[in-house]
Amino acid sequence: MNIKKCKIAILGLGYVGLPLFFEFSKKFQVLGFDTNKNKILSLKKRYKNKINITYNQNLLKDYNIFIVTVPTPIYANKTPDLTALKKATLLISKVLKRGDVVIYESTVYPGLTEEVCVPLLKKRNKLKFNRDFFVGYSPERISPGEKDDFTKIRKVISGSNSSTVDFIYKLYKKIIKAGIFKASSIKVAEASKIVENVQRDINISFMNEISIIFSKLNINTQEVLAAAKTKWNFINFFPGLVGGHCISVDPYYLAYKAKQKNYDPKVILSGRKINNSMGFYVGKIIMKKIQKKLKKKNINVGVYGLTFKENTNDIRDSKVFDIIKILNKKKIKIYAFDPNLKKEDISKIIKIRLNQKFTKLDVLVLAVPHDEFLKFNYSKLKKILNKNGLIFDIRGILKDKKIKENFDYWSL
Amino acid sequence: MNIKKCKIAILGLGYVGLPLFFEFSKKFQVLGFDTNKNKILSLKKRYKNKINITYNQNLLKDYNIFIVTVPTPIYANKTPDLTALKKATLLISKVLKRGDVVIYESTVYPGLTEEVCVPLLKKRNKLKFNRDFFVGYSPERISPGEKDDFTKIRKVISGSNSSTVDFIYKLYKKIIKAGIFKASSIKVAEASKIVENVQRDINISFMNEISIIFSKLNINTQEVLAAAKTKWNFINFFPGLVGGHCISVDPYYLAYKAKQKNYDPKVILSGRKINNSMGFYVGKIIMKKIQKKLKKKNINVGVYGLTFKENTNDIRDSKVFDIIKILNKKKIKIYAFDPNLKKEDISKIIKIRLNQKFTKLDVLVLAVPHDEFLKFNYSKLKKILNKNGLIFDIRGILKDKKIKENFDYWSL
Repeated sequence: MNIKKCKIAILGLGYVGLPLFFEFSKKFQVLGFDTNKNKILSLKKRYKNKINITYNQNLLKDYNIFIVTVPTPIYANKTPDLTALKKATLLISKVLKRGDVVIYESTVYPGLTEEVCVPLLKKRNKLKFNRDFFVGYSPERISPGEKDDFTKIRKVISGSNSSTVDFIYKLYKKIIKAGIFKASSIKVAEASKIVENVQRDINISFMNEISIIFSKLNINTQEVLAAAKTKWNFINFFPGLVGGHCISVDPYYLAYKAKQKNYDPKVILSGRKINNSMGFYVGKIIMKKIQKKLKKKNINVGVYGLTFKENTNDIRDSKVFDIIKILNKKKIKIYAFDPNLKKEDISKIIKIRLNQKFTKLDVLVLAVPHDEFLKFNYSKLKKILNKNGLIFDIRGILKDKKIKENFDYWSL
Repeated sequence: MNIKKCKIAILGLGYVGLPLFFEFSKKFQVLGFDTNKNKILSLKKRYKNKINITYNQNLLKDYNIFIVTVPTPIYANKTPDLTALKKATLLISKVLKRGDVVIYESTVYPGLTEEVCVPLLKKRNKLKFNRDFFVGYSPERISPGEKDDFTKIRKVISGSNSSTVDFIYKLYKKIIKAGIFKASSIKVAEASKIVENVQRDINISFMNEISIIFSKLNINTQEVLAAAKTKWNFINFFPGLVGGHCISVDPYYLAYKAKQKNYDPKVILSGRKINNSMGFYVGKIIMKKIQKKLKKKNINVGVYGLTFKENTNDIRDSKVFDIIKILNKKKIKIYAFDPNLKKEDISKIIKIRLNQKFTKLDVLVLAVPHDEFLKFNYSKLKKILNKNGLIFDIRGILKDKKIKENFDYWSL
């Protein structure tokens, strides 16, 4: 594949595909493709039609490099939902030509690209793998709200043979500023990505487990962590809610593959189990405290932050909604505020009152540590909360001592 | 307590107490105490009697600051063995006077100092806690073979009331160069130490779990980790054996306390379980490969490294002996070498041939990554190993490509 003749089609225009589309568009002819017609139309409108994107699969046939950035979620039973990945792969299969290269960026279990995608790529044509067409895997490493510019993140690449590795290296070299690492195989690249995310999940699950233990021992976990982190090799994690479409999903992909090989991954799944339960755990703690401390008839609860992670507008699998489910009782009125969300975004999902002009809250649940909330001090909270109000500062972000002195304060 | 009038007795002269004894001796009158008569006599001999240490408990009565640095191991059933801690505490109880301060450095579960030690301290006297005598907890953070000079490690301290905290701060300030952190309570200081070690155990257990999974998928874990660590927030851990008297013991202390409160710590214990099994797991892999690849009658296996950790001479609970147990079969002759151990140290424990002049090994097990072994290259191994020899480089330390080309190479 001659890099100068590359015409790139990117399938899936979400938080991974869209930035990739714009970056590659600076250097190549690029088509953005997404099956979601509404998304395409609204993007076209936003960019006044000066954007080469489509929901028409027939346009794919003019391209020779295909990059797949579709979501890889899980089913309700926690097994991999490969619907979007298979669909994108079959679309490519229909237009695949001699010499083409297909690169996957979606997070998958190790082996999936070669075991699941390659057979599908061959389905609608007579091409031979690694002679007529080639495959690569390069995991996306975008960290929403934290590291949004993917060109500044080191990129792992891999390919189905060494010339494909070299080609994919050159291709990404055109846009990645932070350096590129050639993994020794596609499986290794797939495994590296999933290990990164599962490591995070497990470390947070350990923090959640000690937080549960320490609360039973009347020990403040935040104070313990403040002491522990004075050791040179202590790793800074905090108890909290783990939601979203990566950390809370990827471990199931690895577990699925391990179980296929008759191995029960106890460490991975025990971590997942505890992280999955934390929304309900926090909700029950809030409920108990409300019942014990507030003898009023109507209780106003303000939930600050609804997203799965700070400084994003992504509410997928946010565990804040588990808290809300627990609190959703007759005598409790739940108001929510998230600086990153519009009322319309929320009202579709859950019937809560979205409002930021709170004045008479009995309970404040600081669910997500958005930057805006980090600055909250006593005088700010005094305006929002009633006297003797309860504060549930899930991530322990409030530092003003006056807050803890004047309100009933709790953190994980 | 006036710092100028401090006379310090240190109970327990192991890898924690002895350095503490020497350091405090530079500034204070210090007595080192250990119930092990042989240890005292051999130390006296080594220091030509110019060392104020004793096994005579009667000498303790002239001291007013007691620092307890005895081991806190576990019983075979994995519950805390507090024998040494209780014994030391009772000895102190007999000599405790008004104004005295007792400081614990041994690793314990949160609450233990106040729940177990304080009642024992009151047992042989009529003193009242926090009026007549005071207690502190300051966890040792020595990392054998890695950070041996504890004065350069930040120290966490705590005390039973604020004046005791201030006193202990001043006391340790005399010897600690790296800074001192005042924990908010004794329980918090106890918890911080155990969390540090359990975090390490869990992270290694995750590495071991993925190593087991990846071996079933024919994926090289070391290659996966090389790719994963190119991400900015990936944490560098490796699969390996976890033994010794800290990382492999402390989690059981925390689990014990959690279970007392009816909480089953699944993340902590699943990590422990897998780490506990790794010696046997590796042993079985070696055994299988030997049976498959070596058709000889007598097989010489060289085990390099026996200690629980690199660059120490500590073999307590070293999982290398689990490997040896598995290999200890009729037709296998096991030879061992450890640059940090003398023949006498080993022969008491296990009947293996300790020798470093190996020439005709069929199998080399590189069990511990001592610095000396890191330098091994192909020409070195050629002298030790037979042609077609098997190498089990448990921690994956050998970098010379020729080794992997010329021998049957395996790593976790």
